[in-house]
Amino acid sequence: MITRNQNIANLKAGYLFPEIAKRRREFAAAHPEAKIISLGVGNTTEPILPHINKGLVEGAKKLGTVKGYSGYQDEGMAQLREKISSVFYKGKFSIDEVFISDGAKCDIGRLQTLFGAGTKIAVQDPSYPVYVDGSVLVGAAGGWEGAGYAGITYLPCTTENNFFPNLDLIPQNSLIYFCSPNNPTGAVSTRDQLASLVKAAVEKGCIIIFDAAYSEFIRNPSLPKTIYEIDGAAQCAIEVNSFSKPAGFTGVRLGWSVVPKAIKYSNGESVNADWARIAGTIFNGASNIAQAGGLAALDDNGLKEIRKLTDFYLGNAKLIRAALEKQGINCIGGDNSPYIWAHFPGRDSWEVFSQILEKCHVVTTPGAGFGPAGQSFIRFSAFGHRADVEEACRRLGSLM
Amino acid sequence: MITRNQNIANLKAGYLFPEIAKRRREFAAAHPEAKIISLGVGNTTEPILPHINKGLVEGAKKLGTVKGYSGYQDEGMAQLREKISSVFYKGKFSIDEVFISDGAKCDIGRLQTLFGAGTKIAVQDPSYPVYVDGSVLVGAAGGWEGAGYAGITYLPCTTENNFFPNLDLIPQNSLIYFCSPNNPTGAVSTRDQLASLVKAAVEKGCIIIFDAAYSEFIRNPSLPKTIYEIDGAAQCAIEVNSFSKPAGFTGVRLGWSVVPKAIKYSNGESVNADWARIAGTIFNGASNIAQAGGLAALDDNGLKEIRKLTDFYLGNAKLIRAALEKQGINCIGGDNSPYIWAHFPGRDSWEVFSQILEKCHVVTTPGAGFGPAGQSFIRFSAFGHRADVEEACRRLGSLM
Repeated sequence: MITRNQNIANLKAGYLFPEIAKRRREFAAAHPEAKIISLGVGNTTEPILPHINKGLVEGAKKLGTVKGYSGYQDEGMAQLREKISSVFYKGKFSIDEVFISDGAKCDIGRLQTLFGAGTKIAVQDPSYPVYVDGSVLVGAAGGWEGAGYAGITYLPCTTENNFFPNLDLIPQNSLIYFCSPNNPTGAVSTRDQLASLVKAAVEKGCIIIFDAAYSEFIRNPSLPKTIYEIDGAAQCAIEVNSFSKPAGFTGVRLGWSVVPKAIKYSNGESVNADWARIAGTIFNGASNIAQAGGLAALDDNGLKEIRKLTDFYLGNAKLIRAALEKQGINCIGGDNSPYIWAHFPGRDSWEVFSQILEKCHVVTTPGAGFGPAGQSFIRFSAFGHRADVEEACRRLGSLM
Repeated sequence: MITRNQNIANLKAGYLFPEIAKRRREFAAAHPEAKIISLGVGNTTEPILPHINKGLVEGAKKLGTVKGYSGYQDEGMAQLREKISSVFYKGKFSIDEVFISDGAKCDIGRLQTLFGAGTKIAVQDPSYPVYVDGSVLVGAAGGWEGAGYAGITYLPCTTENNFFPNLDLIPQNSLIYFCSPNNPTGAVSTRDQLASLVKAAVEKGCIIIFDAAYSEFIRNPSLPKTIYEIDGAAQCAIEVNSFSKPAGFTGVRLGWSVVPKAIKYSNGESVNADWARIAGTIFNGASNIAQAGGLAALDDNGLKEIRKLTDFYLGNAKLIRAALEKQGINCIGGDNSPYIWAHFPGRDSWEVFSQILEKCHVVTTPGAGFGPAGQSFIRFSAFGHRADVEEACRRLGSLM
């Protein structure tokens, strides 16, 4: 009989969010009267705004017409790729450096295929689970060793270093996962910090996978919204991004990756060419309806709607952070990101998770689920209806 | 610096269809007056029919409303999973055995992750490229050896064996890729043939990945439309399928896989549980708009439209096959599948491809692109507007 892939066996327990969903279900079954509010998984809750929604609807209608019908579009609509380059990168990238995807998580799963089993991995700790879990799946990381996976270098982001890691820890020739605005901490790296990251990557022969999925939540104009604002990044950084949070496309599925042609492997071959090959081989493109919506999201009216929607969630974030701080809980994030990272010093984060669920009937995400350095933290997500967030904030008033 | 994944280096040249597109572009550039017609890549051309299209449009509209909005749905809408089980499998599978995907090709790419680098692979030859290329990407196959990849057992499907392979060639404990109705040959396996395949898989401890993407083109009622019509298949076969061809969703992106809970690895662990874990880790679900369209496609009116659309393409297939046979060319397929497999004995299929392009201005797919046994064959795809197919048939009248 066929044996199980050892890489899967190496993955411990369940993926974080299904595990949380399970605990929520169990609590709900035991307390049928509880009105549970979720500030847990970062799932958007607000309707898609009218102009962008019209783009989706028109995209769907078109497929019912002889003239408007379209089929496979592996690397994405040229018009959308061009628009992404002009809106987010001042036209710096050609359309064959911009790849349309069905979302950042899926793209990160495929990106790992570029480098494969022998790759050294460095990740911010805490971090979004797919960086680590995906590395384990392709065999770039080994088994669980109690506080992390073998072969992964964790870069702790803590109150002590103001949530920006010590770059001296990064190994030579490694693949670095970096996320800003950060999920889960909500911290946003400054221009100087990102410049030091790019410098370290170049000096150490590393490639950065830069996750900018929350860039549209940045309000402080001095904070960089893309790694490519830093000189030299186009030689060492791949950026992934998504319409999920800014346009409410979590269910629509649309994202992109930028793989500049200047990035090379040690043998001088082009990473971009391999990425095109992988996209053509094991991916078949994002939905053309989603792409029509993406185009609408990037024109003037669409960008206004993105601003409006992200403003709304940032409003939620402000309420949540204020409610927590009123309880004397130290927090970061929520000002340029939709996540608030709340500190419960000396406590186990799954235990705090349970306390908040039992006392306030609010679902959160335990920091330890994002990596060893997440222990004693809780992530609050600002994705929710306003009335629910206000009610959750009231309940949090009796937490401590 | 980071080294290239050796698995990618092992992949030879380009993916088949981009290579064909390149040759087409080069021919068009050299012959700007030529009105090229494509019977090459299997890309659907006809508008989505009204009832199914309405499902998509309503799905898009819903997302603009507070009540209808939805976000992440990793494993797919429960209602759609249930409907797939009832329409295609007489309700035999529970919803947690049916996984919604963004298409069969992407799912096959991910399915390979279940078994990984050590797996022995057996494929029909010729075959749809992703079975082999995906196996190379996960390291289950090695380098190109002139007539195939190291570590892959090719099961020739030829005129001599009536396009059903000799099952004695299948190695013990291997992963078998099998496609019926077959792409590219258009051959459909009989019930007895599939029963012998399941028997061989059980006896040899193999798992079958059964690609049923063309099942809705079957018109002969005695031919099985799913591997699960065969006793014992639920213990050894995963089935992948897609809305791409029957509903015209090539650009919409929607498919599914069935991973029965009865399938186990050699250590007794559940393949289904791992598949759920992979879906949750490196995939984020199909577009909810596509899923709304999928639901519409599976109600009574939708199923009528599927019948109408597949009838239309089968009508094309009949014309193409008749035109080729009139030229004295031996063909199979096109009666219960949208592909016609035409034999040009003793000739190189890329050379025949070039001849048809130059003489008739018709793009086809050279059989050798699908594997060693495809040499001297050409695949004609029945996906095209009727007027184009008729014109292509006229031009083929002067081929020989």
